[in-house]
Amino acid sequence: MILINGAAGTQISAQDRGLHYGDGVFETLAVRAGVPLLWDRHMQRLSTGCARLGITPPDTAMLEAEARQVCTSSSAAQAVLKIIITRGAGARGYRMTTPVPATRILALYPWASWPEDFAQHGVRVRVCATRLGLNPVLAGIKHLNRLEQVLARNEWSDADIPEGLMLDAADCVIEGTMSNVFVVRDGKLYTPDVSRCGIAGIVRGLIMEQPGVECAVTDLTLSDMQNADEVFLCNSVIGVWPVRELDGVQLSPGLLTRRIAVYVDDLMIPC
Amino acid sequence: MILINGAAGTQISAQDRGLHYGDGVFETLAVRAGVPLLWDRHMQRLSTGCARLGITPPDTAMLEAEARQVCTSSSAAQAVLKIIITRGAGARGYRMTTPVPATRILALYPWASWPEDFAQHGVRVRVCATRLGLNPVLAGIKHLNRLEQVLARNEWSDADIPEGLMLDAADCVIEGTMSNVFVVRDGKLYTPDVSRCGIAGIVRGLIMEQPGVECAVTDLTLSDMQNADEVFLCNSVIGVWPVRELDGVQLSPGLLTRRIAVYVDDLMIPC
Repeated sequence: MILINGAAGTQISAQDRGLHYGDGVFETLAVRAGVPLLWDRHMQRLSTGCARLGITPPDTAMLEAEARQVCTSSSAAQAVLKIIITRGAGARGYRMTTPVPATRILALYPWASWPEDFAQHGVRVRVCATRLGLNPVLAGIKHLNRLEQVLARNEWSDADIPEGLMLDAADCVIEGTMSNVFVVRDGKLYTPDVSRCGIAGIVRGLIMEQPGVECAVTDLTLSDMQNADEVFLCNSVIGVWPVRELDGVQLSPGLLTRRIAVYVDDLMIPC
Repeated sequence: MILINGAAGTQISAQDRGLHYGDGVFETLAVRAGVPLLWDRHMQRLSTGCARLGITPPDTAMLEAEARQVCTSSSAAQAVLKIIITRGAGARGYRMTTPVPATRILALYPWASWPEDFAQHGVRVRVCATRLGLNPVLAGIKHLNRLEQVLARNEWSDADIPEGLMLDAADCVIEGTMSNVFVVRDGKLYTPDVSRCGIAGIVRGLIMEQPGVECAVTDLTLSDMQNADEVFLCNSVIGVWPVRELDGVQLSPGLLTRRIAVYVDDLMIPC
């Protein structure tokens, strides 16, 4: 089911600025038993993204009611809810002269059917040739300008490699095409800075705030990651995936990764 | 009038990858007496952009027939034609698993009514705080990821300042939010490199190829531009605008700029 500005539908205006300029933000939420998970966190990031772009966000209560309607339209045990908010339909030109109501699109998708093995025994990860461009104004938020991720994800088709890491122009590893990345070194967590490029993932934020676990934001090269004690990926749909191979180098999923995975799983329960 | 995949309409699929990821390219053409100008050049860049993104472009003859249909739907002496090509409607996720036909949208807009004075006596130009991110893979082509331009253009609302210059992270001036930029120094033209960021404009290309005029691609700082003999902007709709003030510094529109403006005007004739 898709709700567009509150009405069931399948189409949007061909004048929408989301289409013309990628002028908007989105969120991807895991849905269990008809309930979107980590709702408040996703709404917080959506609101941050809208503020950064100068888009007046839709009323949260209305969005929540619409999310409930979309999520309960399917009886599937698990699903994925995507919420897109754009600046709305406008005249030609980058400038938005007359403010119009934001466009809101809520769509329910089938659950992503990743092999169980990925979470259990870890995944193979490659390194993408496509780099992330530097832009502090757009960094952190989940905006609709995602060509870098599209190009990066289309670099390979091996189903046994579910993710690729993306670097910036200074050879720092920033994130995966659809996930954030952490390394473990001497019992402490490190994750790349996303203030120049990259997305501040919801699960990344939860992990950084986990009580009793030290975590630092730092620059990480590919070599730093390959020499780490443990490496793992996370996002709101996959939870945590240990990395067992990084660009040809074998890694051992370890105890701290397991502990983080359990912590994240426990947070991803409908309430 | 809007033609969407060949049919008159106003809406596109809410699953279109143009909306979800900005996964496509566009062209903006001046239309005179129902004829889109510089058609072959625009088709060449569209084709280059599609190739860079791995999108199979629509058949050129079909696109030309559709453009003719849209452009002759209005009796206005001048208009603007926007052509958007996206990778099409797809499943969720950055990866495009099953290729689908590209979406094509052709829309006719009213002519941009800039004051005559801008082309005659020059324009005031500001400098945008929003920087262009570095990305050689996306540089040059006119893709749909245009949030940087949207944010830059929304920095000011003074109608007397029609354009703002955008710099990269290394303080090089790259282009305007909607135009390319040239400077004149000792009778020679210089224009910024657009191989790391920026758009390779159609009129920029024509000017660079003008017989009898020397033109070099080079790095230019704001100070270089403010100390140039002449500065001008160009794009497919405005033609050439001399710059008479750049970030508070007065400049004198000069003879070479006039000559280039006439050269471009002569090329922008329906044939």
